[in-house]
Amino acid sequence: MARVHNYYAGPAALPVEVLEAVREELIEWAGTGMSVMETSHRSPEYDAVHNETIADFKELMGMGDDWKILFLQGGASLQFAMVPMNLLGEGRSADYIQTGVWSRKALKEAKIIGNVCVAGSTEQDGVFFRIPKQDELDLDPNAVYCHVTSNNTIFGTQWRQFPDTGGVPIVSDMSSDILSRKLDVSRFGIIYAGAQKNLGPSGVTVVAIRDDMIEKCNDGLLTLLSYKTHVDKNSLFNTPPTFSIYLVGKVLKWLKGKGGVDGIEKENAEKAKLIYGTIEGNPDFFSTPIEPESRSHMNFVFRLPTEDLEKKFIAEGKEAGFIGLKGHRSVGGCRISAYNVNGLDSVKDVVALMKDFAAKNG
Amino acid sequence: MARVHNYYAGPAALPVEVLEAVREELIEWAGTGMSVMETSHRSPEYDAVHNETIADFKELMGMGDDWKILFLQGGASLQFAMVPMNLLGEGRSADYIQTGVWSRKALKEAKIIGNVCVAGSTEQDGVFFRIPKQDELDLDPNAVYCHVTSNNTIFGTQWRQFPDTGGVPIVSDMSSDILSRKLDVSRFGIIYAGAQKNLGPSGVTVVAIRDDMIEKCNDGLLTLLSYKTHVDKNSLFNTPPTFSIYLVGKVLKWLKGKGGVDGIEKENAEKAKLIYGTIEGNPDFFSTPIEPESRSHMNFVFRLPTEDLEKKFIAEGKEAGFIGLKGHRSVGGCRISAYNVNGLDSVKDVVALMKDFAAKNG
Repeated sequence: MARVHNYYAGPAALPVEVLEAVREELIEWAGTGMSVMETSHRSPEYDAVHNETIADFKELMGMGDDWKILFLQGGASLQFAMVPMNLLGEGRSADYIQTGVWSRKALKEAKIIGNVCVAGSTEQDGVFFRIPKQDELDLDPNAVYCHVTSNNTIFGTQWRQFPDTGGVPIVSDMSSDILSRKLDVSRFGIIYAGAQKNLGPSGVTVVAIRDDMIEKCNDGLLTLLSYKTHVDKNSLFNTPPTFSIYLVGKVLKWLKGKGGVDGIEKENAEKAKLIYGTIEGNPDFFSTPIEPESRSHMNFVFRLPTEDLEKKFIAEGKEAGFIGLKGHRSVGGCRISAYNVNGLDSVKDVVALMKDFAAKNG
Repeated sequence: MARVHNYYAGPAALPVEVLEAVREELIEWAGTGMSVMETSHRSPEYDAVHNETIADFKELMGMGDDWKILFLQGGASLQFAMVPMNLLGEGRSADYIQTGVWSRKALKEAKIIGNVCVAGSTEQDGVFFRIPKQDELDLDPNAVYCHVTSNNTIFGTQWRQFPDTGGVPIVSDMSSDILSRKLDVSRFGIIYAGAQKNLGPSGVTVVAIRDDMIEKCNDGLLTLLSYKTHVDKNSLFNTPPTFSIYLVGKVLKWLKGKGGVDGIEKENAEKAKLIYGTIEGNPDFFSTPIEPESRSHMNFVFRLPTEDLEKKFIAEGKEAGFIGLKGHRSVGGCRISAYNVNGLDSVKDVVALMKDFAAKNG
């Protein structure tokens, strides 16, 4: 069969050029006579991949020498615990802004560890259909950090403008929109992302941490849960997920070939315009509960007139080669997860599918 | 170039048949029109892989319904922390037997968390060249568990017979010899292994935990560090390292094709006989500091008459296509890491290399 239009929320599509390159060298890689999966993480060949991936990530993010890049395991979910373990403690407090399921999970772990304040929340009856405005936030100027989830895969919202924290470093889970748009990294202290949406396969979490945050990290922690362990050893304290990191490296090269973050941000904006335009252009058929200024450019959440029509749309989409159009099980409806890899051409096709379905069933 | 003889200590060799099968379906897998890396961890296609891998692992290990199999991240190093976090606490103590660098690391984490006793140690001047005998152990009959490292990659020792703990469940790091030999699992409470030696690529840790140990696990832990979280969600609380698990599944099928654990144990014994026989058969040239009854069937650690000859042997070996013959940086010398995948034919070749080198340089 042919490749499908993969709109899963994550693990998500990878560039076919990347997969082809991986296939080419899967059994004999880089003149080593073995797969990259089989080489020692202490070999010079792997070392080159590791360090080039760090360099490319920093270049794409616009990060200078004051940032360290770590390749950890456990997904964003483990970062929900590691951030407060490393940074909270006696006399310290952190702000958490609540915009969805993931920020709630991050808050839950932080509460187990130390003092936290909810500096804002848009929860209404268990759902979060918007990002808070600046004047809705009650930010602590002395917080050690302010935690936000940059993009919410489940509800389809995104911080289009990050909050003004008055110099308090933002710590952000960017699992679902990392490297999808330009960022003023000077406002952030830690940025972390599970790879499986915009960076590569599942199994590696990229953590970027600024030097002044490393200095604030607690000592005496469990070894593997201490950022300092991984900074000191360049993520080689123990065996890292080498194949996943190698793949992230290839995805970053692909992104550079697409014009980097500038190029992809423009394409993502065009994709968003097409999809939201289709929803708004067919107001009797499509609707989205998300406020316009909170709408994600990654996850497009929408409803059809009835649940039966939603089921039919998802089924017919699948039949036509569009996979993953079902909304998250907790909110229902439909969702298109169009990350960096889901290109404009594919989005034109899915929009055509939407229009066609609306015309036939409206 | 051709495939080499890969004797790295880990990440280590994978069966070439497995890599070929992965290559075949890397871009379009299982009729899905996408790679296994790109599919949702909630998709029925991935679910089948996940559950079949669990079933095959249990079958090969001889584990019944009273065992749960988890796919976690963070390597054995994170298990060094998770085991005591989950099981230690008020009124509880655990025994740790010290046989090398890895058991020392496990002890270090446990000490941060709770009460532990060193029930035995073979350390002498910073090295560990043997496994303790039963009468050297000072075991606590009330310990909540007794921790051992089944095989020591660095020093080349292995528990050929596990200690008699008088009913106290053994918790064992089996990263470097899991599924290499028959095991009476009834004596164990938890068995964990980073995949990258005998099971697959790095990035997934298989944890087998018996029901009665789960019941003893603490509540109120950080979510991702609680075994109960992963047991309750069948390792799908958050996104697991799907590609690594898929590969473990393929390695397990390969192992079943080799006659399972019975078959591989016999082959590993033959390999060990060949290598130790070569060392003992050339006593003026090769030597090993390891006591005969403590010798590993996975990692073969030996010395040559001089460090210069060791360097020459490693270099000539590499030239001839034998990679990874260098001993661990902390102990020097030479090491052959011959896991399940390193077959008898390859071991015959490396033994021929040893004999030839001894004849020419002895």
